[in-house]
Amino acid sequence: MEKGDLLYEGKAKRIYATSEDQLLWLEYKNDATAFNGQKKAEIDGKAVLNNEISSLLFNMLHENNISTHFVQKLSTNEQLVKQVTIIPLEVVVRNIAAGSMAKRLGMAEGLPLKTPIVEFYYKDDELGDPLITDDHALMLNLATEAELAFLKESARKINDILIPFFKDKNIILVDFKLEFGRTKDGKIILADEISPDTCRFWDAKTKQKLDKDVFRRDLGSLTEAYEEILTRIGGDVCIK
Amino acid sequence: MEKGDLLYEGKAKRIYATSEDQLLWLEYKNDATAFNGQKKAEIDGKAVLNNEISSLLFNMLHENNISTHFVQKLSTNEQLVKQVTIIPLEVVVRNIAAGSMAKRLGMAEGLPLKTPIVEFYYKDDELGDPLITDDHALMLNLATEAELAFLKESARKINDILIPFFKDKNIILVDFKLEFGRTKDGKIILADEISPDTCRFWDAKTKQKLDKDVFRRDLGSLTEAYEEILTRIGGDVCIK
Ligand SMILES: Nc1ncnc2c1ncn2[C@@H]1O[C@H](COP(=O)(O)OP(=O)(O)O)[C@@H](O)[C@H]1O
Ligand SMILES: Nc1ncnc2c1ncn2[C@@H]1O[C@H](COP(=O)(O)OP(=O)(O)O)[C@@H](O)[C@H]1O
Ligand SMILES: [Mg+2]
Ligand SMILES: [Mg+2]
Repeated sequence: MEKGDLLYEGKAKRIYATSEDQLLWLEYKNDATAFNGQKKAEIDGKAVLNNEISSLLFNMLHENNISTHFVQKLSTNEQLVKQVTIIPLEVVVRNIAAGSMAKRLGMAEGLPLKTPIVEFYYKDDELGDPLITDDHALMLNLATEAELAFLKESARKINDILIPFFKDKNIILVDFKLEFGRTKDGKIILADEISPDTCRFWDAKTKQKLDKDVFRRDLGSLTEAYEEILTRIGGDVCIK
Repeated sequence: MEKGDLLYEGKAKRIYATSEDQLLWLEYKNDATAFNGQKKAEIDGKAVLNNEISSLLFNMLHENNISTHFVQKLSTNEQLVKQVTIIPLEVVVRNIAAGSMAKRLGMAEGLPLKTPIVEFYYKDDELGDPLITDDHALMLNLATEAELAFLKESARKINDILIPFFKDKNIILVDFKLEFGRTKDGKIILADEISPDTCRFWDAKTKQKLDKDVFRRDLGSLTEAYEEILTRIGGDVCIK
């Protein structure tokens, strides 16, 4: 397997072709961004931590019969994934009110929701990734009605797997963002990443934030928070 | 019938009690506001025009078997309505991309939609009336799932009545906002107003705006635009 041309560079990852059809070389970056790119920093160790955490979580999801793009880790900050055409929807699952939903609806951050909420945001940096309704998604031809239902159902299923997994490690899964994509043969699978960049994790006892909110809100060391998550879920990396 | 105490003053109307149970005295104001109250003006004749247009449209909807709060006109700027508990949802129906939806989704203003879109906005001035999903509305206990379905169905039915009514008058119904409320005996009926304050109307030939966008975007005389609408739909008032 060889690393090919750079196909795309996003805010957190670079994607390269490989010598094999339908496989991509995904490289995590140390860049931290927030507020649609307005706040930026480079943080040593972030790439390695997110690569390790994401790999571990995708493996765990595989064991629970969830199809994802993840194939294998290639190096400390790289992994091999199946190529998909990303559906431009950020599928957000929330168990506790926080972030943009709390602000939008005037809810106190930390309020547990009676039942998890699944939201779609239109993945478009120029528009600021706006919240959209199912009807908007249909109008924009982002997915069919059956596909939207499948995305919601998959997101809930993944939530049902992640909640007890993290609870067992004294971590509250507040909310998280998923991206799905279509493989060449038309199957929809989970893609992108699951990491403290894309989830809100709170310590179960202290409610300490162990995710990108540490960076967004200047709450201390991002790598210490991410290392804490990695250690608790049984991972181990050397970022020194 | 006597006018009682002022119960509530909004941006466009005052609501008074009456000597009869379950009936309210609704008084239109000359105030024009836009951008959640940031832009304001007093415009002579606006109250009379909106009262007349709204009365005429509610009567027309009654003839088409739509239940509304409207009982009768009381004076040039007042009407008698049934009391309801307003459901805090702005039910927006769109036939053509314009306004906040066009901006949110990066669509060109004026693009006809393949099928009408119904959206819910959470009626809360402090939050800026945010767009919400059905799941948000359920979570906030604003309505039940069956009620949300009823609101959408009613909104589409009203759209199907309004489109040809206006088309016949060479007016394009671009979009409009409805409010519904619950009567004492639990029935949901159309309330509030239907006027150039709450609809986008374009001249079918020139595409000239004949609604509150004239005020929002400083496009000329608001009363001339509203009078044009009133005249075309067969109404007549003296605002001199
Ligand atoms: N398996 C995959 N195939 C193709 N594209 C992918 C895959 N997984 C993730 N992507 C995309 O790779 C891009 C780079 O990721 P990232 O740096 O997180 O981008 P962004 O700046 O959009 O957050 C994103 O557009 C993401 O949707
Ligand atoms: N039939 C009714 N019964 C009770 N309230 C009503 C009825 N019709 C309209 N309302 C409410 O009257 C208030 C005043 O109207 P308006 O000035 O347009 O208010 P706003 O500033 O919220 O736009 C609004 O809150 C509206 O929802
Ligand atoms: Mg990303
Ligand atoms: Mg109003």
